[in-house]
Amino acid sequence: MQIAIALYERFTVLDAIGPYQTLSGIPDAEVVFVAERAGTVRDDSGRLGLVADKTFAEVPHPDIVVVPGGPGQSDQMENESLLGWLRTADTTSTWTTSVCTGSLALAAAGLLKDRSATSHWLALEELERLGTRSTGQRVVFDGKYVTAAGVSAGIDMGLALVGRIAGDERAQTVQLMIEYDPQPPYDAGSPEKAPAHIVSMFRDRSRFNDEEQEGAKA
Amino acid sequence: MQIAIALYERFTVLDAIGPYQTLSGIPDAEVVFVAERAGTVRDDSGRLGLVADKTFAEVPHPDIVVVPGGPGQSDQMENESLLGWLRTADTTSTWTTSVCTGSLALAAAGLLKDRSATSHWLALEELERLGTRSTGQRVVFDGKYVTAAGVSAGIDMGLALVGRIAGDERAQTVQLMIEYDPQPPYDAGSPEKAPAHIVSMFRDRSRFNDEEQEGAKA
Repeated sequence: MQIAIALYERFTVLDAIGPYQTLSGIPDAEVVFVAERAGTVRDDSGRLGLVADKTFAEVPHPDIVVVPGGPGQSDQMENESLLGWLRTADTTSTWTTSVCTGSLALAAAGLLKDRSATSHWLALEELERLGTRSTGQRVVFDGKYVTAAGVSAGIDMGLALVGRIAGDERAQTVQLMIEYDPQPPYDAGSPEKAPAHIVSMFRDRSRFNDEEQEGAKA
Repeated sequence: MQIAIALYERFTVLDAIGPYQTLSGIPDAEVVFVAERAGTVRDDSGRLGLVADKTFAEVPHPDIVVVPGGPGQSDQMENESLLGWLRTADTTSTWTTSVCTGSLALAAAGLLKDRSATSHWLALEELERLGTRSTGQRVVFDGKYVTAAGVSAGIDMGLALVGRIAGDERAQTVQLMIEYDPQPPYDAGSPEKAPAHIVSMFRDRSRFNDEEQEGAKA
């Protein structure tokens, strides 16, 4: 059971680590981090480097594909190396999955056409524009395509997928091992629950970034 | 606000990434991954390498110290390089923190004597043996010492600490950004909640490992 987690410059680390820390619990899981080039790939803050041990070309046919998101949507949506690998890997994968705005890469690669999927709450409209039926759910299964909402949702997705692949008991074992009994000190984890002015602040900033990107292209 | 996250061979990745992904949201946070030697440090499965950008010696006085755990308790408890750095850094730190069995390193360094602390549920007895008052709580504050339970508890700790340092609103902003609205597909994240036979399996395996280690030392 080969599980390939894709890295690219400016990815968000927890997007990758949530699935990693859970899917590794599948019996005979052989996880490999892959990128366009082998070596260090820096995250969205530049403060952390993860090592891709293999190139995309060296891992063309994993059983499970995982693509994390990142704040610069063009980093994943216009990354032809990543999109090409996703298209190839998807032809033979058992599961093709994403966390956060990783679903924008799957959609940009043409893999989510008319499928149900999710993404970071700020990216749901963009996901719709790409021809995908976006839902606000935390984890969405549509055939072999599994997408998770923002960042931390990859933990929930990973556990759900371990359950599908290896059974409930194995998933519970993984959950107990990582002591995933969440007790967030605040209840602000979704736009429906967070204070309205914080949600607005994100939406305004996101809109500004969109306009800035459009401006840069024009 | 310099935040140093310690790495050592066979650490558990999510232990480090939970605090990283949350504490990075503190205004003016400057996070740095440190280890005995700069360069790649492999995690507990060997499948993932994280890059330590600085050596312990180069970062002697961070404001916040974070030490993750790992399954090989001797890796952290008998790691003199790590323990020495923890003692030095603790003399000037504002907060000294751990996730999972990272608290065993803090205790082995002599920093948790007679303090309340927590750890991975399988390590609570060991924590007691080291002269610490172990609690089963998910996140424990005792003065400037903050310890989290197993693996995923570092996310809750990170958010709680962001709240203490930068205020509730900033912590809620971080929570919304990482969409931390947990919806685990199972309810098996603590020994009280998981099926009893899964809990027993872990305890038996842990006891076996202890005896094996004792045998190896004898």
